[in-house]
Amino acid sequence: MAINSLQSLLDMAKKSENQRVAVAGFDEESKQAIERAANELGLAFTVFDWRFHGEIGLPSQVEFVNCSSPEESAFQAAKAVSNGHCSIVMKGFVSTSTFLKAILDKSLSLRGKGLMSHLALFEVPTYHKIIGVTDGGMIIAPDLEQKVQIIENAVSFFDAMHYEQIKVAVLCAEERPNPNMPCTLDAAVLRTMSERGEFGKNVLVDGPLAFDLAFSARAAQVKGVSSPVAGDADVLLVPDIEAGNLLGKSFSFLCGGKMAGLVLGANCPVILPSRSDSDENKFYSIVAAVAFTGGAQ
Amino acid sequence: MAINSLQSLLDMAKKSENQRVAVAGFDEESKQAIERAANELGLAFTVFDWRFHGEIGLPSQVEFVNCSSPEESAFQAAKAVSNGHCSIVMKGFVSTSTFLKAILDKSLSLRGKGLMSHLALFEVPTYHKIIGVTDGGMIIAPDLEQKVQIIENAVSFFDAMHYEQIKVAVLCAEERPNPNMPCTLDAAVLRTMSERGEFGKNVLVDGPLAFDLAFSARAAQVKGVSSPVAGDADVLLVPDIEAGNLLGKSFSFLCGGKMAGLVLGANCPVILPSRSDSDENKFYSIVAAVAFTGGAQ
Repeated sequence: MAINSLQSLLDMAKKSENQRVAVAGFDEESKQAIERAANELGLAFTVFDWRFHGEIGLPSQVEFVNCSSPEESAFQAAKAVSNGHCSIVMKGFVSTSTFLKAILDKSLSLRGKGLMSHLALFEVPTYHKIIGVTDGGMIIAPDLEQKVQIIENAVSFFDAMHYEQIKVAVLCAEERPNPNMPCTLDAAVLRTMSERGEFGKNVLVDGPLAFDLAFSARAAQVKGVSSPVAGDADVLLVPDIEAGNLLGKSFSFLCGGKMAGLVLGANCPVILPSRSDSDENKFYSIVAAVAFTGGAQ
Repeated sequence: MAINSLQSLLDMAKKSENQRVAVAGFDEESKQAIERAANELGLAFTVFDWRFHGEIGLPSQVEFVNCSSPEESAFQAAKAVSNGHCSIVMKGFVSTSTFLKAILDKSLSLRGKGLMSHLALFEVPTYHKIIGVTDGGMIIAPDLEQKVQIIENAVSFFDAMHYEQIKVAVLCAEERPNPNMPCTLDAAVLRTMSERGEFGKNVLVDGPLAFDLAFSARAAQVKGVSSPVAGDADVLLVPDIEAGNLLGKSFSFLCGGKMAGLVLGANCPVILPSRSDSDENKFYSIVAAVAFTGGAQ
Protein backbone atom coordinates (compact mmCIF):
# COMPACT_ATOMS: atom_id res chain seq x y z
CA MET A 1 0.00 0.00 0.00
CA ALA A 2 1.23 3.47 -0.85
CA ILE A 3 -0.34 6.87 -0.40
CA ASN A 4 -1.30 8.16 -3.82
CA SER A 5 -2.33 11.69 -3.04
CA LEU A 6 -2.58 14.34 -0.37
CA GLN A 7 -6.30 13.61 -0.40
CA SER A 8 -5.52 10.06 0.84
CA LEU A 9 -3.38 11.61 3.56
CA LEU A 10 -6.34 13.79 4.49
CA ASP A 11 -8.59 10.71 4.67
CA MET A 12 -6.09 9.08 7.03
CA ALA A 13 -5.85 12.22 9.14
CA LYS A 14 -9.64 12.30 9.47
CA LYS A 15 -9.51 8.93 11.24
CA SER A 16 -7.09 10.25 13.82
CA GLU A 17 -8.87 11.56 16.92
CA ASN A 18 -8.01 13.61 19.99
CA GLN A 19 -5.21 15.58 18.37
CA ARG A 20 -4.44 19.11 19.43
CA VAL A 21 -1.88 21.44 17.84
CA ALA A 22 0.12 23.90 19.95
CA VAL A 23 0.79 27.02 17.89
CA ALA A 24 3.71 29.25 18.90
CA GLY A 25 2.57 32.80 18.07
CA PHE A 26 -0.55 33.57 16.07
CA ASP A 27 0.33 34.16 12.42
CA GLU A 28 -2.23 35.82 10.13
CA GLU A 29 -0.61 33.94 7.25
CA SER A 30 -1.50 30.57 8.79
CA LYS A 31 -5.03 31.59 9.78
CA GLN A 32 -6.73 30.10 6.76
CA ALA A 33 -4.91 26.77 7.10
CA ILE A 34 -5.79 26.52 10.81
CA GLU A 35 -9.42 27.39 10.12
CA ARG A 36 -9.64 24.77 7.38
CA ALA A 37 -8.04 22.10 9.60
CA ALA A 38 -10.42 22.97 12.44
CA ASN A 39 -13.41 22.67 10.12
CA GLU A 40 -12.45 19.72 7.92
CA LEU A 41 -10.63 17.59 10.51
CA GLY A 42 -12.39 18.82 13.64
CA LEU A 43 -8.84 19.45 14.82
CA ALA A 44 -8.25 21.36 18.07
CA PHE A 45 -5.60 24.07 18.47
CA THR A 46 -4.09 25.99 21.33
CA VAL A 47 -2.56 29.27 20.24
CA PHE A 48 0.08 30.82 22.48
CA ASP A 49 0.49 34.51 21.76
CA TRP A 50 1.61 37.76 23.34
CA ARG A 51 -0.24 40.27 21.17
CA PHE A 52 -3.83 39.36 20.36
CA HIS A 53 -5.41 38.58 23.76
CA GLY A 54 -7.71 36.03 22.17
CA GLU A 55 -9.00 38.35 19.44
CA ILE A 56 -8.03 36.17 16.51
CA GLY A 57 -11.44 35.31 15.11
CA LEU A 58 -11.03 31.53 14.88
CA PRO A 59 -13.52 28.69 15.45
CA SER A 60 -14.38 27.57 18.99
CA GLN A 61 -12.01 24.58 19.03
CA VAL A 62 -9.10 27.03 18.85
CA GLU A 63 -8.22 28.02 22.39
CA PHE A 64 -6.03 30.98 23.17
CA VAL A 65 -3.39 31.38 25.88
CA ASN A 66 -1.93 34.76 26.71
CA CYS A 67 1.85 34.88 26.95
CA SER A 68 4.27 37.69 27.66
CA SER A 69 6.71 37.36 24.74
CA PRO A 70 7.62 35.36 21.63
CA GLU A 71 10.04 33.30 23.74
CA GLU A 72 7.36 32.44 26.28
CA SER A 73 4.87 31.62 23.50
CA ALA A 74 7.32 29.16 21.97
CA PHE A 75 8.21 27.65 25.34
CA GLN A 76 4.57 27.28 26.41
CA ALA A 77 3.69 25.69 23.07
CA ALA A 78 6.47 23.14 23.44
CA LYS A 79 5.52 22.58 27.09
CA ALA A 80 1.90 21.93 26.10
CA VAL A 81 3.11 18.95 24.06
CA SER A 82 5.59 17.94 26.73
CA ASN A 83 2.83 17.72 29.37
CA GLY A 84 0.42 15.93 27.05
CA HIS A 85 -2.14 18.69 26.51
CA CYS A 86 -1.18 18.92 22.83
CA SER A 87 0.23 16.32 20.41
CA ILE A 88 1.71 18.45 17.63
CA VAL A 89 3.65 21.71 17.68
CA MET A 90 3.51 24.39 14.99
CA LYS A 91 5.55 27.50 14.38
CA GLY A 92 3.42 30.61 14.04
CA PHE A 93 4.64 34.19 14.36
CA VAL A 94 7.91 33.52 16.19
CA SER A 95 11.35 33.23 14.62
CA THR A 96 12.56 29.78 13.63
CA SER A 97 15.45 29.97 16.10
CA THR A 98 13.16 30.92 19.01
CA PHE A 99 10.83 28.11 18.02
CA LEU A 100 13.50 25.42 17.71
CA LYS A 101 15.19 26.54 20.93
CA ALA A 102 11.95 25.80 22.79
CA ILE A 103 11.61 22.38 21.15
CA LEU A 104 15.18 21.49 22.10
CA ASP A 105 14.75 22.78 25.68
CA LYS A 106 16.14 20.11 27.97
CA SER A 107 13.56 20.75 30.69
CA LEU A 108 10.88 19.49 28.26
CA SER A 109 10.45 16.09 26.65
CA LEU A 110 10.25 17.08 22.98
CA ARG A 111 13.90 16.67 22.17
CA GLY A 112 14.48 13.37 20.33
CA LYS A 113 17.52 11.13 20.45
CA GLY A 114 18.90 12.18 17.11
CA LEU A 115 18.83 14.86 14.51
CA MET A 116 15.75 16.82 13.51
CA SER A 117 15.28 16.93 9.74
CA HIS A 118 12.75 18.18 7.24
CA LEU A 119 10.62 15.94 5.06
CA ALA A 120 8.64 17.49 2.21
CA LEU A 121 5.87 15.36 0.72
CA PHE A 122 4.83 16.12 -2.84
CA GLU A 123 1.93 15.16 -4.98
CA VAL A 124 2.97 15.76 -8.59
CA PRO A 125 0.85 15.01 -11.66
CA THR A 126 3.57 12.89 -13.30
CA TYR A 127 4.28 10.48 -10.43
CA HIS A 128 2.06 7.67 -9.22
CA LYS A 129 2.30 8.30 -5.48
CA ILE A 130 3.37 10.74 -2.82
CA ILE A 131 7.11 11.39 -3.02
CA GLY A 132 9.18 12.62 -0.09
CA VAL A 133 12.19 14.93 -0.46
CA THR A 134 14.63 15.22 2.42
CA ASP A 135 16.35 17.34 3.64
CA GLY A 136 15.71 20.62 1.87
CA GLY A 137 14.96 22.58 4.99
CA MET A 138 17.04 21.88 8.10
CA ILE A 139 20.48 20.32 7.64
CA ILE A 140 22.74 22.37 5.39
CA ALA A 141 25.34 19.80 4.33
CA PRO A 142 24.74 16.47 6.06
CA ASP A 143 27.63 14.07 6.59
CA LEU A 144 27.16 10.33 6.34
CA GLU A 145 26.02 9.91 9.92
CA GLN A 146 23.50 12.70 9.54
CA LYS A 147 22.23 11.16 6.30
CA VAL A 148 21.56 7.95 8.22
CA GLN A 149 19.42 9.89 10.68
CA ILE A 150 17.66 11.83 7.93
CA ILE A 151 16.71 8.51 6.33
CA GLU A 152 15.53 7.14 9.67
CA ASN A 153 13.38 10.20 10.24
CA ALA A 154 11.79 9.92 6.81
CA VAL A 155 11.25 6.20 7.34
CA SER A 156 9.45 6.93 10.63
CA PHE A 157 6.85 8.86 8.65
CA PHE A 158 6.21 6.14 6.08
CA ASP A 159 6.24 3.52 8.84
CA ALA A 160 3.42 5.42 10.50
CA MET A 161 1.62 5.29 7.14
CA HIS A 162 1.92 1.47 7.34
CA TYR A 163 4.01 1.08 4.18
CA GLU A 164 5.03 -2.54 3.69
CA GLN A 165 8.17 -1.43 1.91
CA ILE A 166 9.79 1.99 1.90
CA LYS A 167 12.03 2.77 -1.05
CA VAL A 168 14.68 5.42 -0.58
CA ALA A 169 16.70 6.77 -3.51
CA VAL A 170 19.98 8.46 -2.66
CA LEU A 171 20.15 11.16 -5.32
CA CYS A 172 23.44 12.19 -6.90
CA ALA A 173 24.51 13.58 -10.25
CA GLU A 174 25.34 10.13 -11.56
CA GLU A 175 24.79 6.48 -10.81
CA ARG A 176 28.37 5.25 -10.43
CA PRO A 177 30.52 5.83 -7.35
CA ASN A 178 32.98 8.57 -8.26
CA PRO A 179 35.84 9.44 -5.88
CA ASN A 180 35.51 13.09 -6.94
CA MET A 181 31.87 13.22 -5.85
CA PRO A 182 31.57 12.48 -2.12
CA CYS A 183 27.81 12.21 -2.50
CA THR A 184 28.16 9.10 -4.65
CA LEU A 185 30.42 7.47 -2.05
CA ASP A 186 27.97 8.18 0.78
CA ALA A 187 25.26 6.68 -1.42
CA ALA A 188 27.22 3.48 -1.94
CA VAL A 189 27.72 3.18 1.81
CA LEU A 190 24.07 3.88 2.63
CA ARG A 191 23.02 1.28 0.10
CA THR A 192 25.26 -1.30 1.71
CA MET A 193 24.08 -0.36 5.20
CA SER A 194 20.55 -0.95 3.98
CA GLU A 195 21.43 -4.36 2.56
CA ARG A 196 23.01 -5.26 5.91
CA GLY A 197 19.76 -4.39 7.67
CA GLU A 198 20.66 -1.00 9.20
CA PHE A 199 17.32 0.61 8.38
CA GLY A 200 15.04 -2.36 9.05
CA LYS A 201 13.63 -5.12 6.88
CA ASN A 202 10.99 -3.00 5.20
CA VAL A 203 13.42 -0.31 4.02
CA LEU A 204 15.27 -0.44 0.72
CA VAL A 205 17.91 2.24 0.18
CA ASP A 206 19.56 2.48 -3.23
CA GLY A 207 22.05 4.87 -4.74
CA PRO A 208 23.82 6.61 -6.22
CA LEU A 209 20.87 7.31 -8.49
CA ALA A 210 20.43 10.31 -10.74
CA PHE A 211 16.99 11.88 -10.56
CA ASP A 212 15.79 10.29 -13.78
CA LEU A 213 16.60 6.83 -12.48
CA ALA A 214 14.78 7.37 -9.21
CA PHE A 215 11.80 8.75 -11.00
CA SER A 216 11.57 6.68 -14.15
CA ALA A 217 12.02 2.93 -14.48
CA ARG A 218 12.46 3.48 -18.22
CA ALA A 219 15.45 5.79 -17.74
CA ALA A 220 17.06 3.18 -15.49
CA GLN A 221 16.51 0.57 -18.17
CA VAL A 222 18.10 2.79 -20.85
CA LYS A 223 21.12 3.34 -18.63
CA GLY A 224 21.29 -0.36 -17.80
CA VAL A 225 20.93 0.21 -14.07
CA SER A 226 18.97 -2.48 -12.31
CA SER A 227 17.42 -1.12 -9.14
CA PRO A 228 14.24 -2.04 -7.28
CA VAL A 229 13.99 1.63 -6.27
CA ALA A 230 14.18 3.00 -9.82
CA GLY A 231 10.89 4.50 -10.92
CA ASP A 232 9.26 3.69 -7.60
CA ALA A 233 11.01 5.73 -4.90
CA ASP A 234 9.05 6.90 -1.86
CA VAL A 235 11.83 9.09 -0.53
CA LEU A 236 14.49 11.08 -2.37
CA LEU A 237 17.50 11.73 -0.16
CA VAL A 238 19.20 14.82 -1.59
CA PRO A 239 22.91 15.62 -1.08
CA ASP A 240 22.37 18.96 0.66
CA ILE A 241 19.92 21.70 1.51
CA GLU A 242 20.47 23.53 -1.78
CA ALA A 243 19.66 20.50 -3.89
CA GLY A 244 16.64 19.69 -1.73
CA ASN A 245 15.34 23.20 -1.72
CA LEU A 246 15.74 23.52 -5.49
CA LEU A 247 14.12 20.20 -6.19
CA GLY A 248 11.20 20.82 -3.86
CA LYS A 249 10.59 24.27 -5.23
CA SER A 250 10.78 23.07 -8.80
CA PHE A 251 8.11 20.50 -7.92
CA SER A 252 5.89 23.23 -6.48
CA PHE A 253 6.49 26.13 -8.77
CA LEU A 254 7.18 24.47 -12.05
CA CYS A 255 5.13 21.33 -12.03
CA GLY A 256 2.09 22.54 -10.11
CA GLY A 257 2.79 20.07 -7.33
CA LYS A 258 1.08 20.25 -3.94
CA MET A 259 3.23 19.98 -0.85
CA ALA A 260 3.12 19.08 2.81
CA GLY A 261 6.15 19.64 5.04
CA LEU A 262 7.11 18.22 8.42
CA VAL A 263 10.08 18.37 10.73
CA LEU A 264 10.79 14.90 12.09
CA GLY A 265 13.14 13.61 14.77
CA ALA A 266 11.56 15.29 17.79
CA ASN A 267 9.17 13.40 20.05
CA CYS A 268 6.21 14.91 18.25
CA PRO A 269 5.68 16.09 14.69
CA VAL A 270 6.77 19.67 14.16
CA ILE A 271 5.10 21.96 11.63
CA LEU A 272 7.42 24.67 10.42
CA PRO A 273 5.75 26.46 7.52
CA SER A 274 7.76 28.62 5.14
CA ARG A 275 6.55 32.12 4.46
CA SER A 276 6.18 31.38 0.79
CA ASP A 277 4.03 28.27 1.36
CA SER A 278 0.52 28.60 -0.01
CA ASP A 279 -2.50 28.26 2.31
CA GLU A 280 -3.05 24.83 0.81
CA ASN A 281 0.52 23.70 1.52
CA LYS A 282 0.19 24.90 5.11
CA PHE A 283 -3.10 23.04 5.47
CA TYR A 284 -1.59 19.81 4.12
CA SER A 285 1.39 20.18 6.46
CA ILE A 286 -1.05 20.14 9.37
CA VAL A 287 -2.80 17.17 7.76
CA ALA A 288 0.51 15.28 7.45
CA ALA A 289 1.31 15.93 11.11
CA VAL A 290 -2.09 14.62 12.18
CA ALA A 291 -1.87 11.54 9.94
CA PHE A 292 1.64 10.85 11.27
CA THR A 293 0.63 11.16 14.93
CA GLY A 294 -2.46 9.03 14.36
CA GLY A 295 -0.57 6.37 12.40
CA ALA A 296 2.27 6.16 14.91
CA GLN A 297 -0.06 5.58 17.86
CA MET B 1 14.07 40.12 -27.14
CA ALA B 2 14.10 36.70 -25.54
CA ILE B 3 13.87 33.23 -27.04
CA ASN B 4 10.51 31.82 -26.06
CA SER B 5 10.83 28.26 -27.22
CA LEU B 6 13.13 25.68 -28.73
CA GLN B 7 11.16 26.21 -31.94
CA SER B 8 12.45 29.81 -32.01
CA LEU B 9 15.96 28.48 -31.52
CA LEU B 10 15.36 26.16 -34.47
CA ASP B 11 14.20 29.13 -36.58
CA MET B 12 17.43 30.96 -35.70
CA ALA B 13 19.52 27.89 -36.49
CA LYS B 14 17.87 27.62 -39.91
CA LYS B 15 19.28 31.04 -40.82
CA SER B 16 22.79 29.93 -40.01
CA GLU B 17 24.61 28.60 -43.08
CA ASN B 18 27.78 26.68 -43.85
CA GLN B 19 27.95 24.83 -40.55
CA ARG B 20 29.42 21.36 -40.33
CA VAL B 21 29.48 19.13 -37.25
CA ALA B 22 32.45 16.83 -36.54
CA VAL B 23 31.18 13.69 -34.80
CA ALA B 24 33.63 11.63 -32.74
CA GLY B 25 32.51 8.01 -33.18
CA PHE B 26 29.24 7.04 -34.79
CA ASP B 27 26.59 6.40 -32.17
CA GLU B 28 23.41 4.55 -33.14
CA GLU B 29 21.67 6.42 -30.34
CA SER B 30 22.36 9.79 -31.99
CA LYS B 31 21.47 8.61 -35.49
CA GLN B 32 17.93 9.92 -35.46
CA ALA B 33 18.97 13.36 -34.17
CA ILE B 34 21.70 13.66 -36.83
CA GLU B 35 19.30 12.59 -39.57
CA ARG B 36 16.71 15.12 -38.44
CA ALA B 37 19.29 17.92 -38.28
CA ALA B 38 20.56 17.00 -41.76
CA ASN B 39 17.02 17.08 -43.12
CA GLU B 40 15.48 20.03 -41.27
CA LEU B 41 18.53 22.32 -41.12
CA GLY B 42 20.36 21.07 -44.18
CA LEU B 43 23.24 20.66 -41.74
CA ALA B 44 26.42 18.87 -42.85
CA PHE B 45 28.24 16.32 -40.69
CA THR B 46 31.57 14.55 -40.79
CA VAL B 47 31.59 11.33 -38.82
CA PHE B 48 34.94 9.98 -37.64
CA ASP B 49 34.71 6.30 -36.80
CA TRP B 50 36.81 3.15 -36.54
CA ARG B 51 34.12 0.49 -36.94
CA PHE B 52 31.56 1.19 -39.64
CA HIS B 53 33.62 1.97 -42.78
CA GLY B 54 30.96 4.36 -44.00
CA GLU B 55 28.09 1.92 -43.64
CA ILE B 56 25.94 4.05 -41.37
CA GLY B 57 22.94 4.69 -43.60
CA LEU B 58 22.77 8.47 -43.27
CA PRO B 59 21.85 11.20 -45.80
CA SER B 60 24.39 12.37 -48.37
CA GLN B 61 25.48 15.47 -46.45
CA VAL B 62 26.93 13.18 -43.80
CA GLU B 63 30.48 12.36 -44.83
CA PHE B 64 32.42 9.53 -43.24
CA VAL B 65 36.10 9.35 -42.33
CA ASN B 66 37.73 6.05 -41.40
CA CYS B 67 39.87 6.14 -38.27
CA SER B 68 41.86 3.47 -36.46
CA SER B 69 40.59 3.86 -32.89
CA PRO B 70 38.27 5.83 -30.57
CA GLU B 71 41.22 8.07 -29.67
CA GLU B 72 42.00 8.84 -33.30
CA SER B 73 38.31 9.46 -34.03
CA ALA B 74 38.12 12.00 -31.21
CA PHE B 75 41.39 13.66 -32.22
CA GLN B 76 40.45 13.86 -35.91
CA ALA B 77 37.04 15.31 -35.01
CA ALA B 78 38.67 18.02 -32.89
CA LYS B 79 41.27 18.62 -35.60
CA ALA B 80 38.55 19.05 -38.23
CA VAL B 81 37.25 22.03 -36.22
CA SER B 82 40.77 23.26 -35.51
CA ASN B 83 41.63 23.41 -39.22
CA GLY B 84 38.29 24.99 -40.17
CA HIS B 85 36.66 22.09 -42.00
CA CYS B 86 33.99 21.82 -39.28
CA SER B 87 32.51 24.43 -36.91
CA ILE B 88 30.98 22.29 -34.15
CA VAL B 89 32.17 19.15 -32.42
CA MET B 90 29.92 16.40 -31.06
CA LYS B 91 30.61 13.37 -28.91
CA GLY B 92 29.38 10.15 -30.46
CA PHE B 93 30.46 6.65 -29.47
CA VAL B 94 33.66 7.53 -27.62
CA SER B 95 34.05 7.98 -23.87
CA THR B 96 33.65 11.45 -22.42
CA SER B 97 37.25 11.48 -21.20
CA THR B 98 38.64 10.49 -24.63
CA PHE B 99 36.46 13.15 -26.22
CA LEU B 100 37.42 15.96 -23.84
CA LYS B 101 41.11 15.03 -24.00
CA ALA B 102 41.02 15.65 -27.77
CA ILE B 103 39.26 18.98 -27.32
CA LEU B 104 41.84 20.10 -24.77
CA ASP B 105 44.77 18.88 -26.93
CA LYS B 106 47.30 21.70 -26.99
CA SER B 107 48.36 20.99 -30.57
CA LEU B 108 44.86 22.03 -31.68
CA SER B 109 43.07 25.35 -31.34
CA LEU B 110 39.87 24.28 -29.61
CA ARG B 111 41.01 24.84 -26.07
CA GLY B 112 39.58 28.11 -24.75
CA LYS B 113 41.11 30.51 -22.27
CA GLY B 114 38.99 29.47 -19.34
CA LEU B 115 36.87 26.72 -17.98
CA MET B 116 34.53 24.56 -20.03
CA SER B 117 31.07 24.33 -18.51
CA HIS B 118 27.70 22.88 -19.35
CA LEU B 119 24.62 24.94 -20.14
CA ALA B 120 21.25 23.20 -20.32
CA LEU B 121 18.44 25.13 -22.01
CA PHE B 122 14.90 24.23 -21.04
CA GLU B 123 11.52 24.96 -22.47
CA VAL B 124 8.99 24.30 -19.71
CA PRO B 125 5.24 24.87 -19.98
CA THR B 126 5.11 27.07 -16.86
CA TYR B 127 7.81 29.59 -17.81
CA HIS B 128 7.56 32.31 -20.41
CA LYS B 129 10.94 31.81 -22.09
CA ILE B 130 13.90 29.50 -22.47
CA ILE B 131 15.67 29.06 -19.15
CA GLY B 132 19.30 28.03 -18.83
CA VAL B 133 20.63 25.87 -15.99
CA THR B 134 24.37 25.79 -15.36
CA ASP B 135 26.39 23.80 -14.45
CA GLY B 136 24.71 20.45 -13.98
CA GLY B 137 27.12 18.55 -16.18
CA MET B 138 30.82 19.45 -16.01
CA ILE B 139 32.10 21.17 -12.86
CA ILE B 140 31.43 19.18 -9.70
CA ALA B 141 31.71 21.84 -7.02
CA PRO B 142 32.71 25.19 -8.52
CA ASP B 143 34.52 27.75 -6.39
CA LEU B 144 33.87 31.46 -6.79
CA GLU B 145 36.34 31.90 -9.61
CA GLN B 146 34.87 28.98 -11.49
CA LYS B 147 31.36 30.35 -10.95
CA VAL B 148 32.50 33.58 -12.62
CA GLN B 149 33.61 31.60 -15.66
CA ILE B 150 30.46 29.50 -15.69
CA ILE B 151 28.43 32.73 -15.79
CA GLU B 152 30.64 34.12 -18.57
CA ASN B 153 30.18 30.96 -20.61
CA ALA B 154 26.41 31.06 -20.22
CA VAL B 155 26.40 34.77 -21.07
CA SER B 156 28.35 34.02 -24.28
CA PHE B 157 25.42 31.91 -25.44
CA PHE B 158 22.75 34.51 -24.74
CA ASP B 159 25.00 37.22 -26.22
CA ALA B 160 25.08 35.21 -29.43
CA MET B 161 21.27 35.15 -29.26
CA HIS B 162 21.40 38.98 -29.21
CA TYR B 163 19.74 39.39 -25.82
CA GLU B 164 19.64 43.04 -24.79
CA GLN B 165 19.76 42.06 -21.16
CA ILE B 166 20.77 38.73 -19.65
CA LYS B 167 19.40 37.99 -16.20
CA VAL B 168 21.30 35.49 -14.09
CA ALA B 169 19.89 34.16 -10.80
CA VAL B 170 22.38 32.68 -8.38
CA LEU B 171 20.32 29.91 -6.79
CA CYS B 172 20.71 29.01 -3.13
CA ALA B 173 18.44 27.57 -0.48
CA GLU B 174 17.56 31.01 0.81
CA GLU B 175 17.74 34.65 -0.14
CA ARG B 176 19.82 36.07 2.70
CA PRO B 177 23.59 35.71 2.98
CA ASN B 178 24.21 33.08 5.64
CA PRO B 179 27.75 32.43 6.90
CA ASN B 180 26.86 28.73 7.27
CA MET B 181 25.95 28.45 3.59
CA PRO B 182 28.97 29.28 1.40
CA CYS B 183 26.71 29.35 -1.65
CA THR B 184 24.89 32.41 -0.33
CA LEU B 185 28.19 34.21 0.23
CA ASP B 186 29.40 33.48 -3.30
CA ALA B 187 26.05 34.75 -4.54
CA ALA B 188 26.44 38.04 -2.69
CA VAL B 189 29.90 38.49 -4.19
CA LEU B 190 28.78 37.61 -7.73
CA ARG B 191 25.94 40.07 -7.41
CA THR B 192 28.32 42.82 -6.38
CA MET B 193 30.76 41.93 -9.16
CA SER B 194 27.88 42.28 -11.58
CA GLU B 195 26.93 45.69 -10.21
CA ARG B 196 30.57 46.77 -10.60
CA GLY B 197 30.48 45.79 -14.27
CA GLU B 198 32.42 42.49 -14.17
CA PHE B 199 30.09 40.70 -16.57
CA GLY B 200 29.34 43.54 -18.96
CA LYS B 201 26.63 46.16 -19.14
CA ASN B 202 23.95 43.86 -20.47
CA VAL B 203 24.32 41.28 -17.70
CA LEU B 204 22.41 41.41 -14.43
CA VAL B 205 23.43 38.87 -11.80
CA ASP B 206 21.37 38.61 -8.63
CA GLY B 207 21.46 36.30 -5.66
CA PRO B 208 21.19 34.60 -3.33
CA LEU B 209 17.76 33.69 -4.67
CA ALA B 210 15.77 30.61 -3.80
CA PHE B 211 14.27 28.86 -6.80
CA ASP B 212 10.81 30.28 -6.23
CA LEU B 213 12.15 33.83 -6.30
CA ALA B 214 14.06 33.30 -9.52
CA PHE B 215 11.07 31.69 -11.13
CA SER B 216 8.16 33.65 -9.76
CA ALA B 217 7.89 37.40 -9.30
CA ARG B 218 4.92 36.77 -7.01
CA ALA B 219 6.98 34.63 -4.62
CA ALA B 220 9.59 37.38 -4.46
CA GLN B 221 6.89 39.89 -3.63
CA VAL B 222 5.51 37.66 -0.84
CA LYS B 223 9.00 37.35 0.64
CA GLY B 224 9.59 41.08 0.24
CA VAL B 225 12.65 40.60 -1.96
CA SER B 226 13.02 43.24 -4.63
CA SER B 227 15.02 41.90 -7.54
CA PRO B 228 14.94 42.71 -11.26
CA VAL B 229 15.87 39.07 -11.88
CA ALA B 230 12.99 37.60 -9.83
CA GLY B 231 10.46 35.89 -12.07
CA ASP B 232 12.42 36.72 -15.19
CA ALA B 233 15.74 34.85 -15.01
CA ASP B 234 17.41 33.67 -18.21
CA VAL B 235 20.08 31.68 -16.44
CA LEU B 236 19.96 29.79 -13.16
CA LEU B 237 23.44 29.35 -11.69
CA VAL B 238 23.24 26.32 -9.40
CA PRO B 239 25.60 25.73 -6.46
CA ASP B 240 27.00 22.43 -7.70
CA ILE B 241 26.62 19.58 -10.18
CA GLU B 242 24.19 17.69 -7.95
CA ALA B 243 21.80 20.60 -7.65
CA GLY B 244 22.06 21.31 -11.39
CA ASN B 245 21.58 17.74 -12.41
CA LEU B 246 18.59 17.33 -10.11
CA LEU B 247 16.98 20.55 -11.24
CA GLY B 248 17.52 19.84 -14.92
CA LYS B 249 16.22 16.32 -14.64
CA SER B 250 13.19 17.41 -12.68
CA PHE B 251 12.43 19.87 -15.51
CA SER B 252 12.68 17.07 -18.07
CA PHE B 253 11.17 14.13 -16.29
CA LEU B 254 8.63 15.73 -14.06
CA CYS B 255 7.42 18.75 -15.92
CA GLY B 256 7.58 17.46 -19.46
CA GLY B 257 10.18 20.05 -20.39
CA LYS B 258 12.24 19.88 -23.58
CA MET B 259 15.97 20.34 -23.32
CA ALA B 260 19.03 21.34 -25.32
CA GLY B 261 22.50 21.00 -23.86
CA LEU B 262 25.83 22.57 -24.80
CA VAL B 263 29.33 22.65 -23.43
CA LEU B 264 30.70 26.19 -23.62
CA GLY B 265 34.12 27.66 -23.04
CA ALA B 266 35.99 25.98 -25.88
CA ASN B 267 36.62 27.80 -29.14
CA CYS B 268 33.63 26.10 -30.72
CA PRO B 269 30.37 24.79 -29.31
CA VAL B 270 30.67 21.26 -27.99
CA ILE B 271 27.75 18.82 -28.05
CA LEU B 272 28.03 16.19 -25.35
CA PRO B 273 24.78 14.24 -25.25
CA SER B 274 23.88 12.13 -22.25
CA ARG B 275 22.86 8.54 -22.85
CA SER B 276 19.49 9.16 -21.29
CA ASP B 277 18.72 12.17 -23.52
CA SER B 278 15.76 11.62 -25.81
CA ASP B 279 16.19 11.87 -29.59
CA GLU B 280 14.43 15.21 -29.41
CA ASN B 281 16.82 16.54 -26.74
CA LYS B 282 19.78 15.45 -28.84
CA PHE B 283 18.34 17.15 -31.90
CA TYR B 284 17.78 20.40 -30.00
CA SER B 285 21.31 20.25 -28.63
CA ILE B 286 22.57 20.25 -32.23
CA VAL B 287 20.14 23.08 -33.00
CA ALA B 288 21.48 25.12 -30.05
CA ALA B 289 25.07 24.64 -31.23
CA VAL B 290 24.17 25.78 -34.75
CA ALA B 291 22.21 28.80 -33.49
CA PHE B 292 25.10 29.72 -31.20
CA THR B 293 27.74 29.46 -33.92
CA GLY B 294 25.56 31.39 -36.35
CA GLY B 295 24.73 34.09 -33.81
CA ALA B 296 28.31 34.53 -32.66
CA GLN B 297 29.61 35.06 -36.21
